Amino acid sequence: MTWEIFNAIGTIAFAISGAIVALEEDYDILGVYVLGMVTAFGGGTTRNLLIGVPVSEIWDQGPLFMMAIFIITIVFLFPSGALKHWGRWGTFTDAIGLSTFAILGAMHATEMNHPLSAIIMAALLTGSGGGIIRDLLAGRKPSVLREDIYGAWAMLAGLLIGIDLVNQTWGLYLLFVAVVTLRMLTVKYGWKLPHRQFTDQKKAHM
Amino acid sequence: MTWEIFNAIGTIAFAISGAIVALEEDYDILGVYVLGMVTAFGGGTTRNLLIGVPVSEIWDQGPLFMMAIFIITIVFLFPSGALKHWGRWGTFTDAIGLSTFAILGAMHATEMNHPLSAIIMAALLTGSGGGIIRDLLAGRKPSVLREDIYGAWAMLAGLLIGIDLVNQTWGLYLLFVAVVTLRMLTVKYGWKLPHRQFTDQKKAHM
Amino acid sequence: MTWEIFNAIGTIAFAISGAIVALEEDYDILGVYVLGMVTAFGGGTTRNLLIGVPVSEIWDQGPLFMMAIFIITIVFLFPSGALKHWGRWGTFTDAIGLSTFAILGAMHATEMNHPLSAIIMAALLTGSGGGIIRDLLAGRKPSVLREDIYGAWAMLAGLLIGIDLVNQTWGLYLLFVAVVTLRMLTVKYGWKLPHRQFTDQKKAHM
Repeated sequence: MTWEIFNAIGTIAFAISGAIVALEEDYDILGVYVLGMVTAFGGGTTRNLLIGVPVSEIWDQGPLFMMAIFIITIVFLFPSGALKHWGRWGTFTDAIGLSTFAILGAMHATEMNHPLSAIIMAALLTGSGGGIIRDLLAGRKPSVLREDIYGAWAMLAGLLIGIDLVNQTWGLYLLFVAVVTLRMLTVKYGWKLPHRQFTDQKKAHM
Repeated sequence: MTWEIFNAIGTIAFAISGAIVALEEDYDILGVYVLGMVTAFGGGTTRNLLIGVPVSEIWDQGPLFMMAIFIITIVFLFPSGALKHWGRWGTFTDAIGLSTFAILGAMHATEMNHPLSAIIMAALLTGSGGGIIRDLLAGRKPSVLREDIYGAWAMLAGLLIGIDLVNQTWGLYLLFVAVVTLRMLTVKYGWKLPHRQFTDQKKAHM
Repeated sequence: MTWEIFNAIGTIAFAISGAIVALEEDYDILGVYVLGMVTAFGGGTTRNLLIGVPVSEIWDQGPLFMMAIFIITIVFLFPSGALKHWGRWGTFTDAIGLSTFAILGAMHATEMNHPLSAIIMAALLTGSGGGIIRDLLAGRKPSVLREDIYGAWAMLAGLLIGIDLVNQTWGLYLLFVAVVTLRMLTVKYGWKLPHRQFTDQKKAHM
């Protein structure tokens, strides 16, 4: 039950993030709904595809769909009003979504008896796959591949579940809190993953 | 039989639209074929994936493939000549494709006993999914998410079939004509879906 | 056994190409790994999806994964040092990958009793699908659709296998050498597929 609440919070946060990106790109109302839904449900769908769960299972999430559609409508109707103070709340609910999706994704892959690589990838995809599809549909470079630390926290959750270090209920809750905290600290202190300077000879000559 | 003719017309129109986009982007002949084929068959393939029909069923459409490859070859060989007066015909045959694909897609999802959300999504994806993949492969923002009314007519068809308001043969033909007409009126009068102005604080500060 | 060695060489070359593109785009370490892995394994995964092989079979390639992760780590740690003289070697190992992936992809589709169109598409996708996904995730137009001759050699391999002209072990080796050679000559002499000038009336008026 607790996980269902976290899952709902994350779905809402992801749907809002997709709707906002669509508004920023001046997409029409169809674009706002499509990006909202894709951000909320695209990660889990891609994960199902890769770990061998029937993709059509997404259609069993009726109540979550309704909720996402409702919240996207609110965003579309009151873009400035509804989103004025969303910034901080958005980061927090999005962190809940990242953490929940990563943990549930990793557990899903574990149940299918997949190897560690698949479990880590499932956590990463469930947590950040929706955002990647959102960015592609918005004509942007996927932010998760170049900005602050996001997907790596999902992979960390996948790793700890995959090596069976975390498997008890209380352990999973602890992991949930840890990932949310790490994500919030990332935003607060502007943590980034390492980048490498790469001088491309060809580009340098142009 | 009638639907097969509509389906063929739509497939040709979609293949031509993909080939033209590739020519506009100065892609080579391989790019022209790939974008043509992807626009014609990508929507149905993605729909199959999401509603649980084996994706490999696409390979059973041999004659449609041949037709699409033939027409793309014509477009490539005579780009200016063949396309001089294509504009209006293109809009009309594309509208036939949109309408046919949406209706057949929705019926496909209905046969699988999926809920309404899946039926509407199947209509949208079959009708406009190919165009979205085409735009992504061309490095463009998907036009269906931001320009005039296109995908919404597909969703309307999906809705009417999904709530079982339209299920008789004559009803489906009527719906087909309605969607084609609505799409043609959209182009003629420049109808658009609502947009919302969204002032992004962060962007405004830059 | 020989094919496994070719396959390993190709996987390494593809992983390196993905990692380099990520470095060129200033992606962080997560982006470097994701693009490296996607380039190496994305083509085969998409092919499996389209020819009806369970996509989750990718997780059985543990040793190849390890190898790809190892080589991407090297690229990330020593970008300039490791890549100084990579250019020519990169082209050669990439050609081995293209040839191997195309041949193995075509044989995979043949075993599934798919028609010729599916076999050619399987060769094309296995050989160049990873690069297309890499380019999309990097915010680039897919190079295979517009630059020199790459995917067409994969399709040629698919064609010759699909019409059963090449099916013996020695014939496959000969085909392998031919595709590698054609690809190397393409790079050496700057061969290109035909392009067509296309004057878009609308664009010309703007």
